[in-house]
Amino acid sequence: MENAQATETVQIISPEELLENWLGHRRVTRRVIEAFPEDSLFHYTIGSMRTFAHIAKEIMGITGIGVKGIVTNEWQFTPELDYNAKESIVNTKAELLAVWDKVTEDLLVWWPQITPQRFREKTVAFGMYEDTVYGMLLYYIDNEIHHRGQGYVYLRSLGIEPPAFWDRS
Amino acid sequence: MENAQATETVQIISPEELLENWLGHRRVTRRVIEAFPEDSLFHYTIGSMRTFAHIAKEIMGITGIGVKGIVTNEWQFTPELDYNAKESIVNTKAELLAVWDKVTEDLLVWWPQITPQRFREKTVAFGMYEDTVYGMLLYYIDNEIHHRGQGYVYLRSLGIEPPAFWDRS
Repeated sequence: MENAQATETVQIISPEELLENWLGHRRVTRRVIEAFPEDSLFHYTIGSMRTFAHIAKEIMGITGIGVKGIVTNEWQFTPELDYNAKESIVNTKAELLAVWDKVTEDLLVWWPQITPQRFREKTVAFGMYEDTVYGMLLYYIDNEIHHRGQGYVYLRSLGIEPPAFWDRS
Repeated sequence: MENAQATETVQIISPEELLENWLGHRRVTRRVIEAFPEDSLFHYTIGSMRTFAHIAKEIMGITGIGVKGIVTNEWQFTPELDYNAKESIVNTKAELLAVWDKVTEDLLVWWPQITPQRFREKTVAFGMYEDTVYGMLLYYIDNEIHHRGQGYVYLRSLGIEPPAFWDRS
């Protein structure tokens, strides 16, 4: 019995490993932002979708507010992370990348404060979406991958080679 | 010390939960395939990218061969999963969906045979890509999300509303 229990408690992925996976994705997404010409980043779209700047702002908002929220249960958007604001204060590629990097710094501060037990708890993200914390974090990551994939199509349609999906360095 | 160790072995996500997350994504991807008109599925592209049928075949190949390979260490492509074959034997939406569903059945057979310890081991996927098994499985899932996101842009540019990303039912 003791062996069986030990087997069951092998972690298939640790919090640190899941974070590293996410950070690798964030490095790719940052390169996707960088690959856009300034004008296309803020104005180019396909099929009435959002611009990649708007998409990147959503990713930053979900990550920046969403991970802090899991730790503090506060889900208040700051002006630079309010991706649905009528007038965004982030209007250049340089500003976008600066906020991006600040969100990465914050992620590195908040993530270690999510205890393994907390991953298992249910919570209500952004005051609206109930899920387990692990499910919520996977959602944040998956949402970034999903929308970044759209950015790849924007870049290809602009004749620009996107960064390699597999290169997370 | 005993408590500290117990804390460290809380699984943030179990194999069953990671599978369920993937199956939810597979349900969404299946709906994306279904949403394409037959002709667009096999012929429509943006920016010299692959058709969504080709993309779906890659996802099926990686999932079908890649999970079995983790268990058996055999990475042999079958004709219906050989997504780089010069002449694919999967040429209609109905055929594509039939292979899709077979891959789901196979996934349900192979996944429970990946032991928690196996998730932690290094392996060489498809005879080429060395990684931990957990890293490899995350790669398979992330690759599906990434490419499916591209399918969303194809659909939007065709004027078709894609299935909801958040609905995994």
